[in-house]
Amino acid sequence: MRTAGAQRYYLGVDGGGSKCRALLVSEDMKVLGEGIAGPGNPVRGMDIATASIIDATKQALLCAGLPEKAMAELTVGAGLAGVNVPQYYALFREWQHPFASFHLTSDLHIACLGAHQGQDGGVIIIGTGSCGLAQVNDLVVEVGGHGFPYGDNGSGAWYGLQMVHHVLLSLDGLAEPTLLTNALFKASQCHNQLDLIQHFMHSSPTVYARYAPLVFEAAEQNDTTAQAIVRKGAAHIHRIARRLLDVKPASVALIGGLAYKVEPYLDSDIQSLLTTAKAAPEWGAVWYAQQLHEQQDRQIYDAF
Amino acid sequence: MRTAGAQRYYLGVDGGGSKCRALLVSEDMKVLGEGIAGPGNPVRGMDIATASIIDATKQALLCAGLPEKAMAELTVGAGLAGVNVPQYYALFREWQHPFASFHLTSDLHIACLGAHQGQDGGVIIIGTGSCGLAQVNDLVVEVGGHGFPYGDNGSGAWYGLQMVHHVLLSLDGLAEPTLLTNALFKASQCHNQLDLIQHFMHSSPTVYARYAPLVFEAAEQNDTTAQAIVRKGAAHIHRIARRLLDVKPASVALIGGLAYKVEPYLDSDIQSLLTTAKAAPEWGAVWYAQQLHEQQDRQIYDAF
Repeated sequence: MRTAGAQRYYLGVDGGGSKCRALLVSEDMKVLGEGIAGPGNPVRGMDIATASIIDATKQALLCAGLPEKAMAELTVGAGLAGVNVPQYYALFREWQHPFASFHLTSDLHIACLGAHQGQDGGVIIIGTGSCGLAQVNDLVVEVGGHGFPYGDNGSGAWYGLQMVHHVLLSLDGLAEPTLLTNALFKASQCHNQLDLIQHFMHSSPTVYARYAPLVFEAAEQNDTTAQAIVRKGAAHIHRIARRLLDVKPASVALIGGLAYKVEPYLDSDIQSLLTTAKAAPEWGAVWYAQQLHEQQDRQIYDAF
Repeated sequence: MRTAGAQRYYLGVDGGGSKCRALLVSEDMKVLGEGIAGPGNPVRGMDIATASIIDATKQALLCAGLPEKAMAELTVGAGLAGVNVPQYYALFREWQHPFASFHLTSDLHIACLGAHQGQDGGVIIIGTGSCGLAQVNDLVVEVGGHGFPYGDNGSGAWYGLQMVHHVLLSLDGLAEPTLLTNALFKASQCHNQLDLIQHFMHSSPTVYARYAPLVFEAAEQNDTTAQAIVRKGAAHIHRIARRLLDVKPASVALIGGLAYKVEPYLDSDIQSLLTTAKAAPEWGAVWYAQQLHEQQDRQIYDAF
């Protein structure tokens, strides 16, 4: 077993609503270990979030052949979903963490840093939710990601909700028949309108998001209702993209489970700016930790 | 104290999501007593719903100067929110109720019967939710009322959600400025976008519905965003109205807390069919009980 000595270790944490990933790297950015645990965002409670972060960290240390006490020497960067909400940010600021230092930012920010290998650029995430961020020099634009159902337009949850909505309207005779009806019945194992209502009553965004791909399938089969939904969803993503262009990022990475479905429906001028992500969000968290650490070193140096 | 003897008593129950009303009348339709209690729909649990119904009934009996044991002689009609969902309907069918008979239907159905004094007609409710029903002879059309956020378009909850949605888009710079922003900040005592997100996270339809009148106020002040929302909401109500016209009701009653706000935005051909409700839903429940009771009497008579 290696001992934690004079060497510096960086830990990047990507904490989402369903899981938390930790990536342990050496000062020269070599991967030493990885860990994965439960929900890492504070929306489901600080106890769960901090336990997940510690758990993933312990796995990464074990994987690296380092003792648990090395935790106290880690320079940690963490991008956590939900910390854009002040109450959750405040809770994490007060956390008596076991690390040498803990640099907190949003999941969106580390996704952007990861996508551009720590450099400037933009990112749009289309997963269960939808959001975008671009950073160029000191200019930052961040939009969306506010939650469901009042926000997250053009996201997986939004597509699922639109699907249920239009199927119910159609079954009520308030909208024209659509292929979405049978697709939704089949996928949800429902047999009639009341089944559907029971199935989706109090559903989480994750449940809605599961049905999103069906809308794209029906659109490909020329269903006019599905095509209208897809166009509306793509228009939302467009609005996010155009807002990010205000700070003139050289490129924008489109990531998340629905990214490849939505991309063909975006205008060509937006498509020409799109890149694939160069690295995962946990790498972004590592670079974030490194950047802040070097900044602090410089500040200490400048003070003498 | 009167004793319950050979005389027949009808009890009409209107069970909604927040309260339950009971109206006790004599066989010749004279009001004997009234009661009001907590939530009367089964969505929050059968225990709460049945306790509310019994509670409201006891109050009505007390008010009428009748003993509690008279409950066993009541012919009850109940219109309960949520019983259009099979699982809740089934739970109520199995209920060992303490009445002589218990005739169950939806809150929408008794609202329609009440509005037209037990006669044929149509009704559209625009409250926290939205729905419509028309009955002419044996033809019945029922639409909407499926729940939130996938249904209930053009309802109070829908208006509130649209408001939050458009304010968040505007604050993100994804939509033009709107008077709704300051109106929402003021009414919700929020000071910025993140306050709003915290305020509306996991909000119930009732919370959203509270803000609906603000959209109409801003529309009256020529705010284009608010006007677009109002037009979209009114279009949903139109679709419900046109669907009800399929069974050719002589008139349609527009009821619910937002009815008077929405009415001016409806097309003149729809407006010309609108009437005010002649009686409250609990009266509709009384007439429903009376109709079913007389039908049963006829069936028994026909069998001999």
